[in-house]
Amino acid sequence: MLESLKEQVLEANLALPKYGLVTFTWGNVSGYDKESGLMVIKPSGVPYEELKVSDLVVLDLDGNIVEGDLKPSSDTPTHRYLYRNFEGIGGIVHTHSPWATSWAQAGKGIPALGTTQADYFYGTIPCTRRMTEKEVKGEYEWETGKVIVETFQDKDPLAIPSVLVHSHAPFNWGKDPNEAVHNAVVVEEVAKMALHTYQLNPNIADMDSYLLDKHYLRKHGANAYYGQGK
Amino acid sequence: MLESLKEQVLEANLALPKYGLVTFTWGNVSGYDKESGLMVIKPSGVPYEELKVSDLVVLDLDGNIVEGDLKPSSDTPTHRYLYRNFEGIGGIVHTHSPWATSWAQAGKGIPALGTTQADYFYGTIPCTRRMTEKEVKGEYEWETGKVIVETFQDKDPLAIPSVLVHSHAPFNWGKDPNEAVHNAVVVEEVAKMALHTYQLNPNIADMDSYLLDKHYLRKHGANAYYGQGK
Amino acid sequence: MLESLKEQVLEANLALPKYGLVTFTWGNVSGYDKESGLMVIKPSGVPYEELKVSDLVVLDLDGNIVEGDLKPSSDTPTHRYLYRNFEGIGGIVHTHSPWATSWAQAGKGIPALGTTQADYFYGTIPCTRRMTEKEVKGEYEWETGKVIVETFQDKDPLAIPSVLVHSHAPFNWGKDPNEAVHNAVVVEEVAKMALHTYQLNPNIADMDSYLLDKHYLRKHGANAYYGQGK
Amino acid sequence: MLESLKEQVLEANLALPKYGLVTFTWGNVSGYDKESGLMVIKPSGVPYEELKVSDLVVLDLDGNIVEGDLKPSSDTPTHRYLYRNFEGIGGIVHTHSPWATSWAQAGKGIPALGTTQADYFYGTIPCTRRMTEKEVKGEYEWETGKVIVETFQDKDPLAIPSVLVHSHAPFNWGKDPNEAVHNAVVVEEVAKMALHTYQLNPNIADMDSYLLDKHYLRKHGANAYYGQGK
Repeated sequence: MLESLKEQVLEANLALPKYGLVTFTWGNVSGYDKESGLMVIKPSGVPYEELKVSDLVVLDLDGNIVEGDLKPSSDTPTHRYLYRNFEGIGGIVHTHSPWATSWAQAGKGIPALGTTQADYFYGTIPCTRRMTEKEVKGEYEWETGKVIVETFQDKDPLAIPSVLVHSHAPFNWGKDPNEAVHNAVVVEEVAKMALHTYQLNPNIADMDSYLLDKHYLRKHGANAYYGQGK
Repeated sequence: MLESLKEQVLEANLALPKYGLVTFTWGNVSGYDKESGLMVIKPSGVPYEELKVSDLVVLDLDGNIVEGDLKPSSDTPTHRYLYRNFEGIGGIVHTHSPWATSWAQAGKGIPALGTTQADYFYGTIPCTRRMTEKEVKGEYEWETGKVIVETFQDKDPLAIPSVLVHSHAPFNWGKDPNEAVHNAVVVEEVAKMALHTYQLNPNIADMDSYLLDKHYLRKHGANAYYGQGK
Repeated sequence: MLESLKEQVLEANLALPKYGLVTFTWGNVSGYDKESGLMVIKPSGVPYEELKVSDLVVLDLDGNIVEGDLKPSSDTPTHRYLYRNFEGIGGIVHTHSPWATSWAQAGKGIPALGTTQADYFYGTIPCTRRMTEKEVKGEYEWETGKVIVETFQDKDPLAIPSVLVHSHAPFNWGKDPNEAVHNAVVVEEVAKMALHTYQLNPNIADMDSYLLDKHYLRKHGANAYYGQGK
Repeated sequence: MLESLKEQVLEANLALPKYGLVTFTWGNVSGYDKESGLMVIKPSGVPYEELKVSDLVVLDLDGNIVEGDLKPSSDTPTHRYLYRNFEGIGGIVHTHSPWATSWAQAGKGIPALGTTQADYFYGTIPCTRRMTEKEVKGEYEWETGKVIVETFQDKDPLAIPSVLVHSHAPFNWGKDPNEAVHNAVVVEEVAKMALHTYQLNPNIADMDSYLLDKHYLRKHGANAYYGQGK
């Protein structure tokens, strides 16, 4: 069942340590198959070096386990909530990658300061508000999904495919697990550069909006001309 | 004698360079066997790449060498003091890992700013006071153990399994040598992120206590639900 | 056609990930053959690990493709403009290497603070002005070349073989692709060190001009005495 | 001639890239044989990956080449001056390692903030004064040696085996080339940690002098007890 998606999810999980995004088991990737309405996710607490396709867990978006002997990632309800609310996404990556996590701990979004960010994100990568005591003591991981979606009430999640959860760490997504990993790598890189940029110039303004438009749109949408085309 | 513990201690020592926690011989791991009352520790000044099981030194908690041809780590009295006073620990790791050591040199504990820390530490990772001239000129390494225990007089060492020794570096512990190494890695990672968090937002408050509770308790204690269970 | 130059351009492109200068496809190298008036450049969006000589694109400086099945790098017009205006250069490297990019995002040139920079750059590595809306909405990549050349109106591009494009990233050049890569590595290294220098001493003055002269001239020009001679 | 010393010098040179202390050819190691009065040094501008024993250059302390086909490092006069003036040293290492070089560019010595430094350096690692125009335009590399020795007029070079040359980079030494490399690694590590310590606590005082004594003397001198003894 969903063999191709499982392979993608395994490969995307293994990419996290390869790109230096995770320590120990601090991260997880899932993939979603729109047709069947099922998602595939990493099991909880299994080291990446031991992870096999047969360890992956298949669930529906109500949280019913359809296949798999292990417990799914404890962050599964967050993934489910995002797949239910962000139309068109097919992969989600959660990490505690250190530069992006530093911004999340600081409670600040990462502003668009240069073309590296503009090539992937159409503006600031936002940070959620602090979660309330009620949310944290309730269905915490599900509520995490809700506060992320609330943060995007006036933003397009496909144009800004990452978020920082306050006092926690980034979640990233994309049309498939591989693209979600790609975005997780970009967030870490721009988080590092934005910190150093502010150290060099605390008063630097965001990049010009026409430069943001130019770079985002030369890689995305109908008039994109970066890469080798379709 | 204690063959299994020696293997654990060797493996844990070799994990230090693997995780980037040590330069040269700046670190040591010990393990403690409660039943026999004996500990196993790295010999002093032996490079990790040459370290063998037969180099390890076995001592009782009074410091009598029971087995081994080499001198034990010069920090052995600190380890002994901690095993005698922190009920339930079975492994200790000392490193000069650079981010955590920077906090120790600054004389500051690492506050809980996000869930990465909360997953392992139930609050601030404390820094000891400066040691007095009398302590340093006396039984220095034994006194180091005493000042660590003093720092935990109102804390649970099992819930906060690391300390920064002022003007020195971290000591970490756990139920066995492997868990102590694990905690040493976490301290280094949260030390790095906390520094960058303050650079981004010097006025950031500690994380909400209910979020600290949530993350610590979902991985520890009777109601833990992270990982694959027992 | 231009087989030797293609080999150089391939090797120089592959050197970018080797030196840690690029993430994904964020960079490109070209080489220019003065005799034929042709340049060779990386195709757009092709991962470095898959790049082959046969993927490279050959163009004249008017932008006509002479050989190659793939689309050239989207930055090709910038490269063309520089080859047309900087007499004597034979290789260009563009990267988003993180330390240099942080300076570009801060809108600041990298001042000469020590001999590491002086060994390669005869003074400050400048940052361009912000590009105007008209430039960005026009022939953007060509205009990028123009703003770079404008930045060098009173500087010698052979003596200062790199520039930071505001809100973007560095471009570097040299007498051939290999030397351009070399300069790209140096820029990244001095960008990192200059940031840390200012953190240690915000009021540090530039290095003495006679020390700059000494180091630059012991490696460049008629009286150079570094290395094994010609 | 001096085959054992040449092997040591080769090995010490190759250790520089292994420890991440050099980019390209930005560093050199020499060794000195007191009995013959000869030194062995890396040739100028030869990449480490190509360096062979037969490339090394043998000179006397007046600068006369006794053996070798290549030009010695351009920094050779600095090495010669130090061997002539620092009684008891047998190896010198020069690098542009980035953290230590940042302190040199900032014109500041690295104060003793913790036991990592105290284990190797009996106090602050000093920075020289700026060199004068006359010195730089004269016998520059020889004058560099002179300004280093001037910096140590009231210090013991065996107890503080490194210096930062203002606007330049560190020089390190030891009883043999291997120990000099060791000290070069330590300088880089304490340079990094001291910068971060000040970022965490700009008002931190130097470590207590009795703690400095304790750590330095437990590894050096008649009463040392670290390691496995002689």
